[in-house]
Amino acid sequence: MEKVLEQLQPYLDKNMALTTALTLLEWDNETLAPLEGISNTSKAIGILSDEQFKALINDDVKNILKKLESKEEYNKLNERERAVIKQLRRTYRQLEAIPSKEYKEFCEFSAMAPSIWAKARAQNNYEEFAPVLGKLIEYKKRFANYRNKEGEKAYNILLDDFEEGITMDFLDDFFGKIKTEIIPLLNKVIKYNDIISKDYNSLSYTIEKQRDFCKWISSYIGFDFNRGILAESEHPFSTNLHNRDVRITTHYQEKNLENAIFSVIHESGHAIYEMGISDELTQTIVGAGTSMGVHESQSRFFENVIGRSYEFWKPIYPKLVSTFPEQLNSVTLEDFIRGINKAEPGLIRIEADELTYTFHIMIRYEMEKLIFGNEISLEELPKIWDDKYEEYLGMRPANPAEGILQDIHWSGGDFGYFPSYAIGNAIAAQLYYHMKSVMPFDEYLLHGDLKPIVDYLKDNVHQYGTMKNMRELLRDIMDEDLNVDYYIRYLKEKYSKVYHLETE
Amino acid sequence: MEKVLEQLQPYLDKNMALTTALTLLEWDNETLAPLEGISNTSKAIGILSDEQFKALINDDVKNILKKLESKEEYNKLNERERAVIKQLRRTYRQLEAIPSKEYKEFCEFSAMAPSIWAKARAQNNYEEFAPVLGKLIEYKKRFANYRNKEGEKAYNILLDDFEEGITMDFLDDFFGKIKTEIIPLLNKVIKYNDIISKDYNSLSYTIEKQRDFCKWISSYIGFDFNRGILAESEHPFSTNLHNRDVRITTHYQEKNLENAIFSVIHESGHAIYEMGISDELTQTIVGAGTSMGVHESQSRFFENVIGRSYEFWKPIYPKLVSTFPEQLNSVTLEDFIRGINKAEPGLIRIEADELTYTFHIMIRYEMEKLIFGNEISLEELPKIWDDKYEEYLGMRPANPAEGILQDIHWSGGDFGYFPSYAIGNAIAAQLYYHMKSVMPFDEYLLHGDLKPIVDYLKDNVHQYGTMKNMRELLRDIMDEDLNVDYYIRYLKEKYSKVYHLETE
Repeated sequence: MEKVLEQLQPYLDKNMALTTALTLLEWDNETLAPLEGISNTSKAIGILSDEQFKALINDDVKNILKKLESKEEYNKLNERERAVIKQLRRTYRQLEAIPSKEYKEFCEFSAMAPSIWAKARAQNNYEEFAPVLGKLIEYKKRFANYRNKEGEKAYNILLDDFEEGITMDFLDDFFGKIKTEIIPLLNKVIKYNDIISKDYNSLSYTIEKQRDFCKWISSYIGFDFNRGILAESEHPFSTNLHNRDVRITTHYQEKNLENAIFSVIHESGHAIYEMGISDELTQTIVGAGTSMGVHESQSRFFENVIGRSYEFWKPIYPKLVSTFPEQLNSVTLEDFIRGINKAEPGLIRIEADELTYTFHIMIRYEMEKLIFGNEISLEELPKIWDDKYEEYLGMRPANPAEGILQDIHWSGGDFGYFPSYAIGNAIAAQLYYHMKSVMPFDEYLLHGDLKPIVDYLKDNVHQYGTMKNMRELLRDIMDEDLNVDYYIRYLKEKYSKVYHLETE
Repeated sequence: MEKVLEQLQPYLDKNMALTTALTLLEWDNETLAPLEGISNTSKAIGILSDEQFKALINDDVKNILKKLESKEEYNKLNERERAVIKQLRRTYRQLEAIPSKEYKEFCEFSAMAPSIWAKARAQNNYEEFAPVLGKLIEYKKRFANYRNKEGEKAYNILLDDFEEGITMDFLDDFFGKIKTEIIPLLNKVIKYNDIISKDYNSLSYTIEKQRDFCKWISSYIGFDFNRGILAESEHPFSTNLHNRDVRITTHYQEKNLENAIFSVIHESGHAIYEMGISDELTQTIVGAGTSMGVHESQSRFFENVIGRSYEFWKPIYPKLVSTFPEQLNSVTLEDFIRGINKAEPGLIRIEADELTYTFHIMIRYEMEKLIFGNEISLEELPKIWDDKYEEYLGMRPANPAEGILQDIHWSGGDFGYFPSYAIGNAIAAQLYYHMKSVMPFDEYLLHGDLKPIVDYLKDNVHQYGTMKNMRELLRDIMDEDLNVDYYIRYLKEKYSKVYHLETE
């Protein structure tokens, strides 16, 4: 048996090395590369993507997978090897029907498109981005079509790429419950909103000091700076080459204290996940976070569940005040906690609070459903976007930059990605209630000892990489499926407390 | 005919893309990657290097090259295509005899070795680096041996990799002349050395202001920040992905004004070369600087010939003074020019002045000759290094960090590279006298108009990439071979002026 799996190794190695290169090229483009470089560099990216595609999708690998279908061969595999084969089969289902030439073109195009999006956003010009967006949608529709063997809807195929087994039916129910339960809460909160002041947040905060504090807080929650770096980019993100090279970015603004701090905590959550993947799995195809949803659950767990809690800030708020005494001396810990949890409908997703965040996602989900259901044209998109903001959040974007052009995701060809954020929120809440039941969670935070919390996540989630999918993780931790009720309970409890509402 | 060359394109494309990835990985390791990352990342580097090797060195490419040997086929090629074929044949001569497995191991090893060197240097511990150095030397000896078909000496083979056609015979003569002519000059200069004071240089210069000034001066001499970036690393270097993504680094020290400024001018010279390569050639195998020697000629032309001249600083010295008024208000332009040209024997190559620099190279050249002539053991290296410093520069290193561990080059497996620096100096001087004879060189500098100078270099050197080698460039520019006499003349004229010696 050994032999059959060994034959696969060179292909897996090549795929790993090319993934490393492509990840670094993408990181570099977002953080450092000179303005005019991408036009040439994207040629190299196209070729490398093609090589990566061909490293796994070829007749040799197909034959090896075929051989491994026999029960006899399969029984010889250990757990890790079975996970590798399962993941490889999943990749096959995603890619093998797509002609390699088209895939290469798409990779090249989607590597360059974000720079066109960035320019269009800066110039507030949707028309400049529209044809690019149209082309990306066409690619994705065509790819979904190639793969469509069982009459599955295109958008379900895209959703499944980011979260195995998640469909429109599931999400309609998921968001339906949130709408029913959270819209009344949001309306109540808005009514009482004047009682919370967060004027402190828009005072002037030296960027150099923000940098130092953010680096410190990232380390405080568990980011290991021997295995990772914190850099700057327009749009905060995280990425990694393997479990010893994990990278996050943020964007500092002088007149916004919370922005960088919470984006760093968020990205550190992603990073801690990747740093926690076991050495046996890193640099293999099962050596990354298992899905976008689970990834977002970790970032949001750190950013919101922990990072916006009283217990988290109790031991460290004095450090923040001593970093910015002039601005914060008169802001009590209680004021600060209410400030960082203030809910206010706004137009920009990445600036949204926990309560309104899911509505931003719901809007994008509904738009993607329309786009991939062929019920909408490129020209209509901005208006429909604006209408939905008016419907759900009571505000209308004044221009495309604060409307449809605000997110980078579509420019990279990532459709079906946004719902992961909502799924992540729900998982984070579900984990939270479970962890509170098995450990002195609040005590740890109050004592500034986050290690047991990080260790629990490492032991139960991080180390497994892709060996368990989202539902398997939840099942093994708490013997339950994904359940949005926890998230609804979490929001109700939290906001009733922050706004002194009666618990319903 | 079209067909035969077209068959080559996928191999060339793949080589280009992998080169891009490997260049970026190397850059990233030197500038940004987290400490513990390299152990895993080097696995990916090994695999990518192997792929790059196999992209060009394979039977298909060999057969295509065979077909192109026929006169009929060759006549169909245009000039650029002929250059591509010539370069490919040269690469074949360098690589085809090396077993791909060993080449991969070497690439992996030499990607990791600089981090061991850096640690050994920081700890001043030659013993820690010695086995690594030994292994690198063994690789290079073995590789030279594989390639050795005509009884050529190993070191000549390595020299030729960096500068086509340059041999020990040539260099013995080259350095012999410099010894005869420059040692007396150096002795005279040392005698008069007290007359030049450069105390200003070790005052305190805010790093933030140094950064701004360096960025400005880089742009002033022609570095295009839309096509390049300036970053920081322990050891200044330059690299590029293509002609629109060119990168340089420097290292700022608060108590050293000149260090960063001149290293930035130096690296900008390398960068301007790569930015000047024509769009038709970039991202092809003839789309980079033609040799290390010519590359160094450009960096040194900007750093020394231009950058340390009175005419260059006349229009811009006031800007430097106004950046650092406290430190420089009492330093006249004339004092500054003499200060930046002060010659003083020292132990560190990268801090050396123009006059002593070549002796640092000569020492390394002589040591490499001994190493590859098998006349020396690993244990003896530090003592021989120190003895040579005592002989040529009258100083003895107190420890390995200021002795044999000072340079990164050997840790990357680059033996035969150092002489390029001396060749570069000679070419720069030769170009200088020629350019003064064909354009109002000093006038341009005095008017702060460097464009005609950069344009001349672009038109006559940069744009050609590897299409002309060093000797072909010199022949086409001035109908002459490389001639060290210009360099000797240049040093004599310059230092006689700086030290008010009588011209000999």
